[in-house]
Amino acid sequence: MRYELYYWPSIQGRGEYVRLALEDAGADYVDVARERGTASMMALMDGKATDTPPFAPPFLKAGKMVIGQTANILLHLGARLGLAPKTEPGRLWVHQLQLTITDLVLEIHDTHHPLGPSLYYEEQRTPAKKRTAEFWNERVPKYLGYFEGLIAARGGAYVTGRRITYVDLSLFQIVAGLRYAFPKRMQKFEREIPGLVSLHDRVAARPNIEAYLASPRRIPFNEDGIFRHYKPLDL
Amino acid sequence: MRYELYYWPSIQGRGEYVRLALEDAGADYVDVARERGTASMMALMDGKATDTPPFAPPFLKAGKMVIGQTANILLHLGARLGLAPKTEPGRLWVHQLQLTITDLVLEIHDTHHPLGPSLYYEEQRTPAKKRTAEFWNERVPKYLGYFEGLIAARGGAYVTGRRITYVDLSLFQIVAGLRYAFPKRMQKFEREIPGLVSLHDRVAARPNIEAYLASPRRIPFNEDGIFRHYKPLDL
Repeated sequence: MRYELYYWPSIQGRGEYVRLALEDAGADYVDVARERGTASMMALMDGKATDTPPFAPPFLKAGKMVIGQTANILLHLGARLGLAPKTEPGRLWVHQLQLTITDLVLEIHDTHHPLGPSLYYEEQRTPAKKRTAEFWNERVPKYLGYFEGLIAARGGAYVTGRRITYVDLSLFQIVAGLRYAFPKRMQKFEREIPGLVSLHDRVAARPNIEAYLASPRRIPFNEDGIFRHYKPLDL
Repeated sequence: MRYELYYWPSIQGRGEYVRLALEDAGADYVDVARERGTASMMALMDGKATDTPPFAPPFLKAGKMVIGQTANILLHLGARLGLAPKTEPGRLWVHQLQLTITDLVLEIHDTHHPLGPSLYYEEQRTPAKKRTAEFWNERVPKYLGYFEGLIAARGGAYVTGRRITYVDLSLFQIVAGLRYAFPKRMQKFEREIPGLVSLHDRVAARPNIEAYLASPRRIPFNEDGIFRHYKPLDL
């Protein structure tokens, strides 16, 4: 099966969680908009090219299916790529954790866009500072503390136990992204999450991930994605 | 199977999408925190009473499984309650739509909490006005226009075709909630979404839903939930 991933070609964004899973598994896939432009992506969203038009990228074409929503794509790919259990309880547990990461990703986006996604950051600098302070005081300890606790309860290997899942790959991305966007705040905070830092390092050292990160397929972090480095927000 | 739903006992919130599915299907369930207080809910979140502690309510106990995240609970219940297809493409499509509703619900919450969930509305009135304006100018037309288009493309019955799914029940709640929170704005906007308004009315008239809405089990909308009526936000 050659998968077709549709996502904005110039950012990591929400597509990156899917890219990491495909890359780690060595799956055969095309990153369509990067290789051929965004026209066919738009046609699928318009509902002209499918009966199940997604609301927004990313989405995955797997045979005849068009699957939207990052966590839903990973739910479909998980067991097929060897990155999730096959049993229903295991699948739902891993998916539940991914949905919690989805909530976290939205809150990360809100740090620089508290007044909404349609305005520029430059139009909302002051509320962005307040939202970011609240995010680091309240939300980061709650979210990352939750995942740190799961790793510790399972003996320090992966979030759901001894086998890696796509959730671990996504948590690698969360740690990498927070380091990029908030280097000072994150450096201070990392002492609270030794399990997550170790998980990040072990994921980064996996041969397929290491090769991906060094390749031009890994788009650099930038100020159009989810994780943006704005100095006034990183005190 | 007697399901146990765990959610905050004084609000509709994110639990309401699960309640509507259980009620419509006439499922046997206990709304645990409403009937017995929040102690056992807290014990499950602490990880003392389960190996798979959820990050936040709502969650569902189904036999030995503890399932968190609203959309994940509905994914599990869907076909079992006759509210989703059994095939994988059908299940994923319905789940994808529910995840899009999840995103919308978070944006609705952000209208009164743009600076984050840990501060009171009273501490963020001015940014709330700006976020709400952006929400109604940009986001409501985009989200509700998307679902309106799906209903129209399928001939005006339900969002995914001729059979009702839990997504239709959730869209009922979205229309009802926006009417409660923003009566003036919503009244103006409803002419743009005749299919959704008709869907709302048909869901409300289903015998089990009608009985539920008239019962004390339906918690009234209030200013602690997702949909809050604050006059300055409803111009």
